[in-house]
Amino acid sequence: MAVIYLGNRRIKAEIGNTLLEALQKGKVNISSLCGGRGLCGKCKVVVQKGYENIDYRKVAEEEFLNESEIKEGYRLSCLTKIIKDGEIYITIPLEWLRESQRMVIAGKLVPVEIKPTFKKFFLKLNPATLTDVLADRDRIQKALESSIGKLVKRIDLHVLRKIPVILRESDWKITVGVWNEQEIITVEIGDKTHISYGFALDIGTSKLAGYLVDLNSGKIITSESVVNPQTSFGEDIIARITFASENERNLEEIHKILIEKINQLIRTCCKRSTILTDEITDMVIAGNTVMQQLFLKITPFYLGKSPFVPLTKSHLDVKARELGVRINKGSYIHILPQVAGYVGGDAVADVIATELNKTDAMSLLIDIGTNTELLLGNREQIWACSCASGPAFEGAHVKFGTHAKNGAIEKIWINPLSLEVSYETIGRGRPTGICGSGIIDAISEMFIKGIIDRTGKIQKKEGYRRIRNDEFIVAYASETALGADIVITQRDVREIQYAKAAIYTGITILMKHARIPCQEIEKVFMAGSFGTYVDPASARNIGMIPDIPLNRIEFVGNTAGSGACLALINKDVRREAEDVVKMIKYVELAAEPNFQTIYFNSLNLPNENIGEFPTVQNLISKYRFQR
Amino acid sequence: MAVIYLGNRRIKAEIGNTLLEALQKGKVNISSLCGGRGLCGKCKVVVQKGYENIDYRKVAEEEFLNESEIKEGYRLSCLTKIIKDGEIYITIPLEWLRESQRMVIAGKLVPVEIKPTFKKFFLKLNPATLTDVLADRDRIQKALESSIGKLVKRIDLHVLRKIPVILRESDWKITVGVWNEQEIITVEIGDKTHISYGFALDIGTSKLAGYLVDLNSGKIITSESVVNPQTSFGEDIIARITFASENERNLEEIHKILIEKINQLIRTCCKRSTILTDEITDMVIAGNTVMQQLFLKITPFYLGKSPFVPLTKSHLDVKARELGVRINKGSYIHILPQVAGYVGGDAVADVIATELNKTDAMSLLIDIGTNTELLLGNREQIWACSCASGPAFEGAHVKFGTHAKNGAIEKIWINPLSLEVSYETIGRGRPTGICGSGIIDAISEMFIKGIIDRTGKIQKKEGYRRIRNDEFIVAYASETALGADIVITQRDVREIQYAKAAIYTGITILMKHARIPCQEIEKVFMAGSFGTYVDPASARNIGMIPDIPLNRIEFVGNTAGSGACLALINKDVRREAEDVVKMIKYVELAAEPNFQTIYFNSLNLPNENIGEFPTVQNLISKYRFQR
Ligand code: FES
Ligand code: FES
Repeated sequence: MAVIYLGNRRIKAEIGNTLLEALQKGKVNISSLCGGRGLCGKCKVVVQKGYENIDYRKVAEEEFLNESEIKEGYRLSCLTKIIKDGEIYITIPLEWLRESQRMVIAGKLVPVEIKPTFKKFFLKLNPATLTDVLADRDRIQKALESSIGKLVKRIDLHVLRKIPVILRESDWKITVGVWNEQEIITVEIGDKTHISYGFALDIGTSKLAGYLVDLNSGKIITSESVVNPQTSFGEDIIARITFASENERNLEEIHKILIEKINQLIRTCCKRSTILTDEITDMVIAGNTVMQQLFLKITPFYLGKSPFVPLTKSHLDVKARELGVRINKGSYIHILPQVAGYVGGDAVADVIATELNKTDAMSLLIDIGTNTELLLGNREQIWACSCASGPAFEGAHVKFGTHAKNGAIEKIWINPLSLEVSYETIGRGRPTGICGSGIIDAISEMFIKGIIDRTGKIQKKEGYRRIRNDEFIVAYASETALGADIVITQRDVREIQYAKAAIYTGITILMKHARIPCQEIEKVFMAGSFGTYVDPASARNIGMIPDIPLNRIEFVGNTAGSGACLALINKDVRREAEDVVKMIKYVELAAEPNFQTIYFNSLNLPNENIGEFPTVQNLISKYRFQR
Repeated sequence: MAVIYLGNRRIKAEIGNTLLEALQKGKVNISSLCGGRGLCGKCKVVVQKGYENIDYRKVAEEEFLNESEIKEGYRLSCLTKIIKDGEIYITIPLEWLRESQRMVIAGKLVPVEIKPTFKKFFLKLNPATLTDVLADRDRIQKALESSIGKLVKRIDLHVLRKIPVILRESDWKITVGVWNEQEIITVEIGDKTHISYGFALDIGTSKLAGYLVDLNSGKIITSESVVNPQTSFGEDIIARITFASENERNLEEIHKILIEKINQLIRTCCKRSTILTDEITDMVIAGNTVMQQLFLKITPFYLGKSPFVPLTKSHLDVKARELGVRINKGSYIHILPQVAGYVGGDAVADVIATELNKTDAMSLLIDIGTNTELLLGNREQIWACSCASGPAFEGAHVKFGTHAKNGAIEKIWINPLSLEVSYETIGRGRPTGICGSGIIDAISEMFIKGIIDRTGKIQKKEGYRRIRNDEFIVAYASETALGADIVITQRDVREIQYAKAAIYTGITILMKHARIPCQEIEKVFMAGSFGTYVDPASARNIGMIPDIPLNRIEFVGNTAGSGACLALINKDVRREAEDVVKMIKYVELAAEPNFQTIYFNSLNLPNENIGEFPTVQNLISKYRFQR
């Protein structure tokens, strides 16, 4: 028996089997849309050790692998046979395991020192007597001072109110919680230093992602993501701005619905972890500027008007109770600093989480969402912009579009000869719709296989049953859970063209500002929940991202969320965030002189200037020739 | 025609008239209980200039005047005739004019530099443009910094919410209000620096006194006093503690009723002055420790239990909105520091207002109320205690006792021969009851004229119609507005004895701690609303205050209130208050070893040790001899 090692898994394999067969028997969720025929290229693995136990690379494999991939040991698992008993160490590139999709919520968490802004201290006090009549508050402050070497002057009113009783009920042994060495915000009976939780919240235009963090261990205990309820007032940022700016009642309403949902999210996470909401004593918010202002109930009106100036660039610390957020009464909420009207705390969190501000390598971060944040740079300078990519990637404005939930088609392969379709759904059940990554895959496949042309127009082709008048059938009614055909319409293709053009325009303009061609981008971070599912080859094929070697791409999950978590765990991160804001140069796309031209060129597949996409050009000519 | 000058009044007078007649014709409210017969001694004036225009002092006058008074030019106005055309400058001693009773509320206001904690700044900002995209908040903070030379980091959430709109509606010309150089708490359109008000509040056990102060001029605009609504939960401090400590609902209730009344008081003052409550941007609270804790909704339970430790000695700054106090949303309320469980912010304000902490003269401050604060000392050291004098001086527990309102008998004189009574009421209408100062006058007169003996027992005397079984008739039913006789009962006498003994015991013990005899007390400040009406000779006669020359007594009005006003007008006063707390040595009366003995001795009139009251001894023997 051979043994395949995949991360911390150990999979037994028989000689003669392909790697794909062995992995599938071992219940590893690996894509194989062409059914293991070496046609789809979706079954890539990286062999790290044990080359002697597998057979040689086939020419057919090389069609799907570029030079650097070959150098790094990439193989198509369906074409790679096991030939000898022994150990084979592999990884599945781009973290492309289905299991890892949980990471969507978790995001990349670089290790930081545990040094939270909120800290508890256990104090054993001398009881008050007739000869020691120090006032209660002064007694606590003195003891705390001798314990931390600093006088904490401020005490929250709610703590003050509890002090007299707690001191006496605890037999003068209490735990005080200190915020930022500046204010006592909790007081408890006895030693409660082991209970210390924070909540990080990424407020996305479409989704809220919450993380319950143990401030003592720096670990995420649980996380949860829900739809941003403000969606009912408008899907994109502009619609939200318009609604919220109409009158004060609207602003109140759109603020309140958000706060209520956040409270629900917090309760859900607490319940699951048997933690009391009152035990959450710190909170960090990352969101784009509009979301952060709506969270604070500050009108976003002027964010939608030139010169698009935000209320604040620096961070804010606001008492949770002032906003109606139900965590511990004394707690502060830290709202991350913002760069500009359209580059907010989420982008800053992205940088923090990926350490873009510390690397020498020129890096591009793409945080895809209804609003897509783009950051390009390294430790010296970072350029940033934001593009209104719209909610198409979240499944909106697409006829059978859906959120990435069970039953959503997420991967598609089109047989280049028959134009028949293979697909996979989340959870492997009957399809209910197509999620963002499925749509990108579909458009990419339709384009590469010649079903749509470079302008995005669906071609009339006789003899192919899936091509109908202005639509392409992905799944027949008989296969779906809907009882209707799931199709990609001409309008769907257009929506994706608009969205991808917006992103590519942003990237192009950032590269112009940074004065680097795309080949010099050494690292690409794909962030956000959508960014974690998408097939980067498909994204490249349609011209959403530049044509760079795919192994430079790293999926980092929800970095807005993980950046917020880091700001909970280590207070220096909050200061670092302020520095990040200073090193980010905001690029206002609308002010760019040739914005229109770039955008217009980017509408085509992959682009009007196909020379920018040599890999895609190759692919097209290959399939043209085949058919 | 002669002319009498009294303060800023000018009164024409005919030769041959007495000063009393001239003053009465000039509508000056001066007491003359014996009807100008030289018997009551209530018509004293001080002649300062113009001796050549009046006749010589009579022997009869000297019976009511001590040596130092004679030296200073004291005369009985009913016995002093005008003999020449010319100018006569007089004052009425002890501020004893009825008109000055308004001062009850105003209190003494020593001049201080106008340097309030809350200050407004008018800023003309550069509008945001595409080339100047400073965030709104940062723009304001920078402009403010260059205006005051200090970065004000914190901004109230309510201000943040207004900033974007106000900046643009004001054409970038705004006024920001800064609290203590630490936080921006208001923002307004245009130049509003001329609008800046504060509210000082003295929370007495029985009364609330509020002062609306113009922070630009340092002037009190208006003031108002109302009954403390907590009285319905108990008249004295102990009853309040008991009620509030019973359960959380009670604490909530007694807190809420106070806050509601305070809001009413603020509204009343604002309405009268056509000022908006929103224009009040600073507030200072002075109250005894229990009142201050109830104001904050902090249980007073442990203030009633040994070792009687308060929550805090240092001051507190609490957002008004956190307490439900309806002034400007961003405002802080400054709660003055406290000395001990029973010597609170009101005592500290007393010291501030009288500058007891700055004088070389050994001074005694008596702030009479349901709880009486006593302070003895000078710039070097101050001893303080508090005595439960009870609400008798406020008219409670006295059969016909009433508050100092229209119709209350406030001055009484008893003819030593006939034992007939003359009295004056507030507003000069038909009597409705006897207020505190009237009761003190009554007991003093009854004692001096032999109606009660030194133990306080009402004597049986045949042939005097006003002496009945165990009571003394002050006003007959036919004269009163009640249709019933107004009398002083034996129980009333007892109540006053308890109350005055408590105060005198406190003074005695303070003198013991300070190691000075009463002759060395160079100055006595009578404070509080009751303290302003009382006749100090009567107070001395019954043994409430030591037997010291009456001209050492100064009536200072509601110094708790005026101290709070000073803390509004000048921020250094707040720091000074902290220093005052440090220089006050709290004396716990109950812990005093011979407290019981001193108290028991003080129950007698004027005292068991009559040697301590030589003046009173003289008076008694004089009238004994007469009858
Ligand atoms: S499964 Fe290997 S290429 Fe399709
Ligand atoms: S009026 Fe002058 S003594 Fe009575």
